[in-house]
Amino acid sequence: MYQYLDNPDWRDKLVVKMDFLDKLNAAVDTNNSLACVGLDPNLDKLPKHLLNDKTPFFTFGKAIIDATADLVCAFKPNSAFYEARGAVGIEELKQTCEYILQNYSNIPIILDYKRGDIDTTNSHYTKFAFDYLGVDAVTVQPYEGRKAFKPFLDRKDKGIIVLCRMSNEGADEFQEMLVDGRKLYLRVAEHVRDEWNTNKNCHLVVGATVPAELAEVRQLIGDEMVFLVPGVGAQGGDLEATLKSGLNSKGRGLIINSSRQILYASGGEDFAQVARQAALGLRDEINKYRGEN
Amino acid sequence: MYQYLDNPDWRDKLVVKMDFLDKLNAAVDTNNSLACVGLDPNLDKLPKHLLNDKTPFFTFGKAIIDATADLVCAFKPNSAFYEARGAVGIEELKQTCEYILQNYSNIPIILDYKRGDIDTTNSHYTKFAFDYLGVDAVTVQPYEGRKAFKPFLDRKDKGIIVLCRMSNEGADEFQEMLVDGRKLYLRVAEHVRDEWNTNKNCHLVVGATVPAELAEVRQLIGDEMVFLVPGVGAQGGDLEATLKSGLNSKGRGLIINSSRQILYASGGEDFAQVARQAALGLRDEINKYRGEN
Repeated sequence: MYQYLDNPDWRDKLVVKMDFLDKLNAAVDTNNSLACVGLDPNLDKLPKHLLNDKTPFFTFGKAIIDATADLVCAFKPNSAFYEARGAVGIEELKQTCEYILQNYSNIPIILDYKRGDIDTTNSHYTKFAFDYLGVDAVTVQPYEGRKAFKPFLDRKDKGIIVLCRMSNEGADEFQEMLVDGRKLYLRVAEHVRDEWNTNKNCHLVVGATVPAELAEVRQLIGDEMVFLVPGVGAQGGDLEATLKSGLNSKGRGLIINSSRQILYASGGEDFAQVARQAALGLRDEINKYRGEN
Repeated sequence: MYQYLDNPDWRDKLVVKMDFLDKLNAAVDTNNSLACVGLDPNLDKLPKHLLNDKTPFFTFGKAIIDATADLVCAFKPNSAFYEARGAVGIEELKQTCEYILQNYSNIPIILDYKRGDIDTTNSHYTKFAFDYLGVDAVTVQPYEGRKAFKPFLDRKDKGIIVLCRMSNEGADEFQEMLVDGRKLYLRVAEHVRDEWNTNKNCHLVVGATVPAELAEVRQLIGDEMVFLVPGVGAQGGDLEATLKSGLNSKGRGLIINSSRQILYASGGEDFAQVARQAALGLRDEINKYRGEN
């Protein structure tokens, strides 16, 4: 490599090949942030002046992205919100991802779409996420089992974030069932650690609403995987407890997502500016508990 | 009601309000069929002469629909295959659903999209399926628990088909874990029966690859729910054993899906005609074991 580094003919052609985790860690460092902004555009909540926009979800997302890209470690568009408007929504989701890739290529995109099917079908879901949209990571279900997710797991450079313990009310219905005396979500975590993660590209969704459970999963997993943590803010998760429970021994390993509380902090024309303040507040509060402010 | 029936001014304005199950049962009767054609359009497998078509998935689907609509009890488009082509794929999925709704309004559409998220997000997935596409039923995940699926379960007229036991290799990884001595998929079936199904609109996905398990679920559930059965054909499920194991006491209660073996029975210009023969063969073989040929 050094021969190329020292040769001016080649130096401009050098690229760094980063996988999702490299890109995430670099963004964590650059922006000193574990905060993630979730892009959940919703016509019922969008600032009124955007409702006549030709591409309201893209215009809204672009303003939020521009206002927060130096404060986050990732953006997380939620596919459902775009799908609700059908083909035009999907087109705007693509525009939004393209905008991030072109203007903030250092910030990873996590497509939150929680897909899960048999392997042949999953190979089509990977085309949507990785080839069409070009995102860096996705969320997936565990229920179909590892073999079904081979088309995802084979994408070594992409992050595959498996649902483990969710933050919604009633998530315990199956997730806390006891399998040989251990809760199902812990069995999911163990399986992902021991069997799914051969390409070192697996991570977990672990909600913020019960910090003791986050601690339990972190203890089980060790430092290796990153936990995508929904549920701070609107769903009532406690930030300090979340950080203390979920950080790995290097003071990272968490992606703390906030959507509604940032996106809709103001419903007026100043929405992006107010969203920036909310994102800044979240980042700094996280860092206070990380001891890095 | 009879006063309207007898009054010629009103008679033309009478409509029958059917929910998913009514519509399914009527199609089962009209077409004497438990067969479902799965619409999984795939550019790698489409007849060559369609590859230059402006809307290849719609054109392909339309021909398959026209060729089989008098032989099936349902059509099952698989969202993943359309999503793989992004916004244009979604547009063609909508065209396909519209075509069925306009021309074969007696045949229910099951959108196979296996979604699952928290309740607010699920409400957007219902918009995609029921409001944008106008389908009659959807497949969903169990992992998030009943409360998360309220936006689905509240749609009384729609069928909510919950993944129970899947047909893919490796599906046993979590689905056969023992919870208090009983397999997880049986616990899922019990929960759906006892807690999810208050609007009587829940059904189950139970694969054809292990007929003994299908029998176990049928015994547990009784006659009430319909089982959507993938895995006959390409995945190797045995049709006779599937029917004997899964039929309810009325000789119905199953939707036997076949996708690849019908869609791609011929890769030539005669694809629709050959697909019809394959669908006819499936319908008649099913009826042989139903004792209704």
